[in-house]
Amino acid sequence: MWIETKTEMEEASRTRASFSRRVLNGLLLCSGDMEHLDKYMKDKSFVLQLAVCGLRGVTRVILANNPLSGGLILAALYWASPWQGLLGTLGVLASTLTAVITGQDSVEVAGGHHGFNGMLVSLLMGVYSSAGDWYWWLLLPVFLGSATCVFLFSGLSSFLDRWDLPAAVFPFNIIIILYLLCTGPEHPYFPHHSIKPPGALEPNATELIALQVIRGIPLGVGQIFACGDLGPSLLILGAVFLYSPLLTVHALLGSAVGTLTGLSMAVRHESLYSGLSGFNGALGCMAVGGFFIFSLWTHLFAIASAFFSAYANIALSNLMGTVGLPACSWAATLVATLMLLLTGSLAAYRIPTGQVRAPERNLQLRSQWEAGNTEERESADV
Amino acid sequence: MWIETKTEMEEASRTRASFSRRVLNGLLLCSGDMEHLDKYMKDKSFVLQLAVCGLRGVTRVILANNPLSGGLILAALYWASPWQGLLGTLGVLASTLTAVITGQDSVEVAGGHHGFNGMLVSLLMGVYSSAGDWYWWLLLPVFLGSATCVFLFSGLSSFLDRWDLPAAVFPFNIIIILYLLCTGPEHPYFPHHSIKPPGALEPNATELIALQVIRGIPLGVGQIFACGDLGPSLLILGAVFLYSPLLTVHALLGSAVGTLTGLSMAVRHESLYSGLSGFNGALGCMAVGGFFIFSLWTHLFAIASAFFSAYANIALSNLMGTVGLPACSWAATLVATLMLLLTGSLAAYRIPTGQVRAPERNLQLRSQWEAGNTEERESADV
Amino acid sequence: MWIETKTEMEEASRTRASFSRRVLNGLLLCSGDMEHLDKYMKDKSFVLQLAVCGLRGVTRVILANNPLSGGLILAALYWASPWQGLLGTLGVLASTLTAVITGQDSVEVAGGHHGFNGMLVSLLMGVYSSAGDWYWWLLLPVFLGSATCVFLFSGLSSFLDRWDLPAAVFPFNIIIILYLLCTGPEHPYFPHHSIKPPGALEPNATELIALQVIRGIPLGVGQIFACGDLGPSLLILGAVFLYSPLLTVHALLGSAVGTLTGLSMAVRHESLYSGLSGFNGALGCMAVGGFFIFSLWTHLFAIASAFFSAYANIALSNLMGTVGLPACSWAATLVATLMLLLTGSLAAYRIPTGQVRAPERNLQLRSQWEAGNTEERESADV
Repeated sequence: MWIETKTEMEEASRTRASFSRRVLNGLLLCSGDMEHLDKYMKDKSFVLQLAVCGLRGVTRVILANNPLSGGLILAALYWASPWQGLLGTLGVLASTLTAVITGQDSVEVAGGHHGFNGMLVSLLMGVYSSAGDWYWWLLLPVFLGSATCVFLFSGLSSFLDRWDLPAAVFPFNIIIILYLLCTGPEHPYFPHHSIKPPGALEPNATELIALQVIRGIPLGVGQIFACGDLGPSLLILGAVFLYSPLLTVHALLGSAVGTLTGLSMAVRHESLYSGLSGFNGALGCMAVGGFFIFSLWTHLFAIASAFFSAYANIALSNLMGTVGLPACSWAATLVATLMLLLTGSLAAYRIPTGQVRAPERNLQLRSQWEAGNTEERESADV
Repeated sequence: MWIETKTEMEEASRTRASFSRRVLNGLLLCSGDMEHLDKYMKDKSFVLQLAVCGLRGVTRVILANNPLSGGLILAALYWASPWQGLLGTLGVLASTLTAVITGQDSVEVAGGHHGFNGMLVSLLMGVYSSAGDWYWWLLLPVFLGSATCVFLFSGLSSFLDRWDLPAAVFPFNIIIILYLLCTGPEHPYFPHHSIKPPGALEPNATELIALQVIRGIPLGVGQIFACGDLGPSLLILGAVFLYSPLLTVHALLGSAVGTLTGLSMAVRHESLYSGLSGFNGALGCMAVGGFFIFSLWTHLFAIASAFFSAYANIALSNLMGTVGLPACSWAATLVATLMLLLTGSLAAYRIPTGQVRAPERNLQLRSQWEAGNTEERESADV
Repeated sequence: MWIETKTEMEEASRTRASFSRRVLNGLLLCSGDMEHLDKYMKDKSFVLQLAVCGLRGVTRVILANNPLSGGLILAALYWASPWQGLLGTLGVLASTLTAVITGQDSVEVAGGHHGFNGMLVSLLMGVYSSAGDWYWWLLLPVFLGSATCVFLFSGLSSFLDRWDLPAAVFPFNIIIILYLLCTGPEHPYFPHHSIKPPGALEPNATELIALQVIRGIPLGVGQIFACGDLGPSLLILGAVFLYSPLLTVHALLGSAVGTLTGLSMAVRHESLYSGLSGFNGALGCMAVGGFFIFSLWTHLFAIASAFFSAYANIALSNLMGTVGLPACSWAATLVATLMLLLTGSLAAYRIPTGQVRAPERNLQLRSQWEAGNTEERESADV
């Protein structure tokens, strides 16, 4: 049994190689935007299509677009808190269905563009609610809020389309602020926690713990989904990695920049430890990393965008905190919109909003396109 | 005397029929946009033209455009309070004259587009003033504020024109907020009442009186003109009915939705009884009813718009109440603007801003146009 | 020696005349936009070019564009406070260099468009800082803030370009507000003074001193550069006069209107004496005087714009004062933007944003252009 002939060994090694190649191919098929799935889904049932575009919607929050990543993120949310997971699922379904009913563009719906705002609204309604988990009345505002996101997304898209800007998470930010303003800490039906601004309102009595701060960096990525546990946050990072390793680097880098910014402005330690200082930086960094062709130049702009988002987040948190409101992701969304409007050297790397794919794919498409251009020019020269 | 031959009776009946037909025709001539009046007014004196376009301006507030309705509304305002009626009259005249002097488009001026914002500003200045009626110094800000509305209307129209959006009552909302911010509860010259947000700041000690709530629904339509009495509010409703019965239905429905929304968010009873909960809903509902071709589909969107306006109004009132400001009709104006930007199934029913007429006329024009199209297509097929 | 022949006297008088003509020519060369300098600068070193476009940037704050005026203004700032002068210089250099590095349009950079926002941010950071002069850590936010202005200027320009609107001082207003929100009165690293709104919070116990109020009018022009001393303010006025006498008239008139407005609204005496009531009026008046061809009609609009800016400034100061923020030049910037959007008789005098020169030059170009048109028409008639 221990004796193998050379041919057998070669055979086995070849099988292993072919197996790992097949695994790699499988992984590659599962990573990126999974556009091949769309052709496969065409003749499938409505429920299956809804599930796939819902899962795509889940990943749109972090500028990804991959149903498998969406599944992983949902799993992470259910892991962190089943109630939150349920709210997120209902939110993404409610807003996607509203989009179908109100006759939104079917390509957009299929791409999950109408799901992510509803999902975020639902998750944040759950997080801010002080009525505890499994408070079923909360489903009422969750449904209404998620549905209204579709209206805002459609209207804002028409408005911003003049500059080829995406509506991004503006609808979420607007709806959650309106919801929190409508209700209040002592609302009889939908009470919510009062929100403290991150500015140094109370002196930081205790020493800063470096390890906790570092732990806040991956948590910053989780906080994009209002998730403050390390395990699920790492799973979410894994989901981003499956979509695009480059985007993961941007997410972590942005979160680190956000934490650094928080340190430089002496925010509450709580804010650093929980990752709340980092998530706007992460979003700001990912937006530039995702909407522009990757290059050293773009990377520097991505870091600048992370810094700007993080500082703007502290400023807006202090402002909105005076009326008891959170700053959500207003800072990152506004800064990302600004970066997309920028003229000068960055504009040359801009990808039209409709053609954005995973960063790796963008790079590949650009080089193909450039190669094509060179060939054409050469053939024209001849 | 009691004996009539058959011919005499027939004669009398025919006369009655012709009389009622003539009355009906007269009424029909007086309802809708009264476009035939424009031709008739062309060679009339400036004062008469000013009066007609002022009265048109009065009705523009509630998306109507009919000088007779305008007269009824003014009468209602004078009935409720002669001082308020005077302020409204001066406001509409001041802003219309400013528009003439600053050389605004004469078709717009004649259509009353430059009157309604000035009128609302004047009415609200009067309502918020704590100096009592017949405080003549108030005419100074009334004139200045109404005149400034023309600047804002013209500038905002240029801005919003890119999306074929109307400036609506944005100028009024901006000017009244600036005025209230400039002065204050203890201002030496122009003191005003402090404004309480509708959120449940004090617990509602007393029982809710259903009849009072129902009474708040027509009052909600009156509150569009800052009028809180039942009689004048009903007269205003009558004026809307003269312009368009369909619009009246939308107004009442929207006000009811607004009141329902107030109930669901447990606002102060005062707010429900006075109709202040309802008027944003009414405006939001009327905007969709007025700017889109009537259909079952549009009607559902109108109700959604009423709900959204009413909830947004509660949210904005709570926000602006923290600095002692009222939310005016910001909510309805923003939501209506959003609805006009919407893509999807609603967009198919959109009427270009310049071609909006009374809802009944819109329906008629659309069916004529469609009939024309079908005929054309048929003749093309042959 | 006392005896001169007639020829000698004539000779001397001719020399004097030719001398004064040469001085006048020299002065004329130094006034206005000094476009001839650009040709001369083309082959000069980068440092010299940077200095000139920095100095142009300094004057862009007050809608001028003349490096000599810029030098005078910088001198005035160093005179008032060397630390403020240094901050201003660093601000204008930091933002101009950032514009060069991020590849902004070189014509814009050379025209000083990327310097003035950074300069204002730096000056205001210095004024609001409560850490005293020569607090070197302040250079960190000064550099960062000035650099970020370029991003905002570029992004906002892309946005506003659709209406041919300039980004003006919006970037400065945004960045300084974000900075003040980020830090706070008791911030450990960057503390700043708390800001009191101009509304009559405390009763004006003392009598108003007329002379002090009049002194506030030229101070209002100095306050555009956050300079509250009379001497430097007069020097700044002189710098504006060198660029364009017409603009100086607008500046003083606007400041006077602003002071009048402050009186009418009973603001704190402090605010009148220091010129803080006047500077928004001055900016609002200069914006219309600068962006429109001068005429009686435009002049009336310029005064209206000054009034509107000044009232809006009081309103915004009261609003933003509730969260401890200054209103900066938000009012004037918004009103000026509105005036540029205006339709009607004012729009006929509008100069396209890119073709704005000194008001005198605008007048001259317009009459040349009109003369050309008449000639053309005449030759066409023949």
